[in-house]
Amino acid sequence: MSFADLLRVTPGTTPDLEAIDPDGTPGFDGDKDAGHEALKPLRVELADFQERLWAESRESLLIVLQALDAGGKDGVIRKVVSAFNPQGTRVTGYGVPTEEELRHDYLWRIHANAPGHGRIGVFNRSHYEDVLVVRVNELVPESVWRQRYDQINDFEAHLAANGTRIVKFYLHISRDEQRRRFRKRLDNPEKNWKWSSGDLETRSKWDDFQSAYTDALARCSTDVAPWFIVPADRKWYRDLAVAGVLAETARDMNPRWPVIDEDLSAIVIPE
Amino acid sequence: MSFADLLRVTPGTTPDLEAIDPDGTPGFDGDKDAGHEALKPLRVELADFQERLWAESRESLLIVLQALDAGGKDGVIRKVVSAFNPQGTRVTGYGVPTEEELRHDYLWRIHANAPGHGRIGVFNRSHYEDVLVVRVNELVPESVWRQRYDQINDFEAHLAANGTRIVKFYLHISRDEQRRRFRKRLDNPEKNWKWSSGDLETRSKWDDFQSAYTDALARCSTDVAPWFIVPADRKWYRDLAVAGVLAETARDMNPRWPVIDEDLSAIVIPE
Repeated sequence: MSFADLLRVTPGTTPDLEAIDPDGTPGFDGDKDAGHEALKPLRVELADFQERLWAESRESLLIVLQALDAGGKDGVIRKVVSAFNPQGTRVTGYGVPTEEELRHDYLWRIHANAPGHGRIGVFNRSHYEDVLVVRVNELVPESVWRQRYDQINDFEAHLAANGTRIVKFYLHISRDEQRRRFRKRLDNPEKNWKWSSGDLETRSKWDDFQSAYTDALARCSTDVAPWFIVPADRKWYRDLAVAGVLAETARDMNPRWPVIDEDLSAIVIPE
Repeated sequence: MSFADLLRVTPGTTPDLEAIDPDGTPGFDGDKDAGHEALKPLRVELADFQERLWAESRESLLIVLQALDAGGKDGVIRKVVSAFNPQGTRVTGYGVPTEEELRHDYLWRIHANAPGHGRIGVFNRSHYEDVLVVRVNELVPESVWRQRYDQINDFEAHLAANGTRIVKFYLHISRDEQRRRFRKRLDNPEKNWKWSSGDLETRSKWDDFQSAYTDALARCSTDVAPWFIVPADRKWYRDLAVAGVLAETARDMNPRWPVIDEDLSAIVIPE
């Protein structure tokens, strides 16, 4: 069975995050080394896909990455997104909104970074923070964030109807794994600059975030913009599964090399 | 001797493009296989540099790529720029200006894409087109483009004074090599969509472009924003030399991991 079929949140259903093992490796029997090997041809396939997507310049691909802190978003970008030619790929990270962004609706900054024809856009965090951290930390009243699921679905449907393929990944890690990664981060001078005291505060609201994620995954996994829940305690599986879903998406999109009508072989190039 | 020292256009001097062999491999004695091997550790070094640049978030790096058609700009992006984490790297291609861009001075769209702190910006073509194709095709009067060398130097000095390191590469190919690459492009269905009839027109103005490049290289190679002339008939050497100059630049910039004052080892992460 495909990674996409195994990991997709079926539209209209509510995933039970507690029942999904963050340490699991659905769809793959091998070990870490085998996982690394399996990733290689997928990276080649993704690179080839990107060239055709760019050449055809008809559709776009939008990849949304969401996870709790230390969930592995950066790792996916480094290990999987790096397979694409940087020329046609743009990664946008969404942090606390700027003053200017706050003077607009929450989808304004998102829309501005939607990928153009032939391009791949990668969102490191996204508009989903507006129903996640914004909800958990009560930054807007419930009456406001409650409306957003429908608004997001409408927005994503609009992008899809206009040629953007959307795939959304929730990287699912366990409480224990987050603790181990935080500890590593704190103890490594090449990583501890990433530490923020907010990380512990967010961790203390673990259950609230799980509830908020469950609602976002349940209400916003649609046919045109599905969510995939990727068990992410094992980094190698996480990368393999994301690359696998992307490769399956690429096969389905199957952009074609443009066909030139003119007989180019007749063209003479002067000395 | 370093690639940078061998390939840099000494500020205040005029390079003799005819005297520079596009098939040469200055600074490297090995063959193609050795060149591919030598590129690998440079890619690792560039990836490490990028992480520190991003972590420190103090300076920026701007890489300008210029060449005639089929000169290898896309290849450098695929083979060298891809070493950087896509999260901190943004490639901007500059084509014919849009209507909105034309309502502004020619540096407006350039400045808008200058890399922020900790970021790497890569320009596939650049403001130099405004003293190259614009000059050769007489899109503005000479009195206008003549002023631009000083304007460009002032602009680049401004970026440099505000924390952006600038390195500019001219990929130097021969007339014969361009013809071979055009032929390959025309005869390959995965490449012929790149073909434009304008390519032949530009080729027919080869000498004009060489003159225009010579002036740009002579007048705009400065201490803070040097030009490097990279012999580019051999793709493997071109990639190696660009990576070499970038690695030497990276060593000189030498961004540091931020040092955290707080004693992070004392932090307890709750279960």
